[in-house]
Amino acid sequence: MNASQTRRLPIGVFDSGVGGLTVFRALRQALPHEDLIYLGDTARLPYGTKSRASISRYAGQATAQLQGRGIKLLVVACNTASAVALDALQEQMKPVPVIGVVEPGATAAVAARPGGKHLVLATEATVRYGAYRHAILGRDDRAEVRELACEMMVSLAEEGWTEGSIAEAIIRRYLEPLEDLAYEPDSIILGCTHFPLLRAAIQSVAAEGTAIVDSASTTAGVSAALLAEHGLLNDQESPGRLKLMATDGASRFARVGGRFIGEDLDAEDIELVDL
Amino acid sequence: MNASQTRRLPIGVFDSGVGGLTVFRALRQALPHEDLIYLGDTARLPYGTKSRASISRYAGQATAQLQGRGIKLLVVACNTASAVALDALQEQMKPVPVIGVVEPGATAAVAARPGGKHLVLATEATVRYGAYRHAILGRDDRAEVRELACEMMVSLAEEGWTEGSIAEAIIRRYLEPLEDLAYEPDSIILGCTHFPLLRAAIQSVAAEGTAIVDSASTTAGVSAALLAEHGLLNDQESPGRLKLMATDGASRFARVGGRFIGEDLDAEDIELVDL
Repeated sequence: MNASQTRRLPIGVFDSGVGGLTVFRALRQALPHEDLIYLGDTARLPYGTKSRASISRYAGQATAQLQGRGIKLLVVACNTASAVALDALQEQMKPVPVIGVVEPGATAAVAARPGGKHLVLATEATVRYGAYRHAILGRDDRAEVRELACEMMVSLAEEGWTEGSIAEAIIRRYLEPLEDLAYEPDSIILGCTHFPLLRAAIQSVAAEGTAIVDSASTTAGVSAALLAEHGLLNDQESPGRLKLMATDGASRFARVGGRFIGEDLDAEDIELVDL
Repeated sequence: MNASQTRRLPIGVFDSGVGGLTVFRALRQALPHEDLIYLGDTARLPYGTKSRASISRYAGQATAQLQGRGIKLLVVACNTASAVALDALQEQMKPVPVIGVVEPGATAAVAARPGGKHLVLATEATVRYGAYRHAILGRDDRAEVRELACEMMVSLAEEGWTEGSIAEAIIRRYLEPLEDLAYEPDSIILGCTHFPLLRAAIQSVAAEGTAIVDSASTTAGVSAALLAEHGLLNDQESPGRLKLMATDGASRFARVGGRFIGEDLDAEDIELVDL
């Protein structure tokens, strides 16, 4: 395949479910001429509470599915899979580049608050593997990092209860232990792709001046820079085509996913695939 | 196998995760001399948001695992699997009896409030298949039934936030649409095995005099009656042995499951199995 053919290939985006659609949406805004293909492994979500071995196996299978369709870049839009399996997926996809959501989020947080105190809100698995902690401290040895597992916030986003008193009470409850420790973060990293939907509620609960780092938009920015650097930007002038796939439950994917992508989705537009 | 040998076999209990441990606990209280074996399909939870085909396949595999170990009764301690796959599982287990959680809950609700208005709190899938509605109306044609999908309540139970202002606010939010419709239920059926943990919070939000029907304890009662009727009660005098199995994440199973069973569990006591 020559460079011109490669440029026309879609960007593949993969997540355990609908959460990665926040990354998909950010990619679409940053790169409106690119074709995008999304795979949500809804049959086996959530990854966040599963073992390392299972997460690696599932992520490898999802990657193989996208690889088989031909892509020029893989975005692992799942914090858990990025935390656990990024190296293995990069190996599997060679020479196609693979970007996770953890590294761009860590880079953006360090840039926003050098030498600062960071707070990562994430799923249990992302916290357990300390992926953000390692990525931040590897970039800034003066930084401090704390990580909080906030599973209820995933449910809030899926249920669409993204603002109001219940969302704020839940976020406040998760942040309480930090107040007891007098840990006042300079940045809060949305370390789960569901959490950009709760951005306003998190901002309203956080102390004034706290930077909110959204790994969806930072990952889209890094993706655009990488494609430009490798001469892989699509040169078509028409808007990119979008394709959505899921491993189970097309109607739920359309209903909940619509909230994440910010527009109505139709179950008939979701292709069901087996991994 | 003769009757005496059959009596000594354990009761098998199966759920998509830890929720069925509320049924396991109720069985243990009702039948302290029975051996109990539990299988939580934690690698593939939650079933509640998956398709009918996937739920049936998973339930069949879990049932085969317990069948292979030898059991005298199968309790499907998962509302979603009971709603979707009970007939198929009864066929698969013949001549061993199979009890789901939907029928006992419906029977108890009708007995508690004949001709009454019932409210079923459940997962999306249980609501979608209308299992409680059919079971209640099949027993009492004067009854009225409404069903509410309450996914956030599952997360509340798993996170252990089972009482206090957040739990009550979430329950109240789910009940709001009923107030708008002026539907005042005489009974509230806990149609998800996670919800017995929220019983006190639900009771505190519900109107005074509302019957709370807990399908965990009603299923244990029906199991005891069925074993007695078939002469299958274990005649040993020592306390029954307990065995717990999961398909993934033993440490999380132990931590969250401990809240459901009401005692500390050790990850090393959980056997990991592949389905």
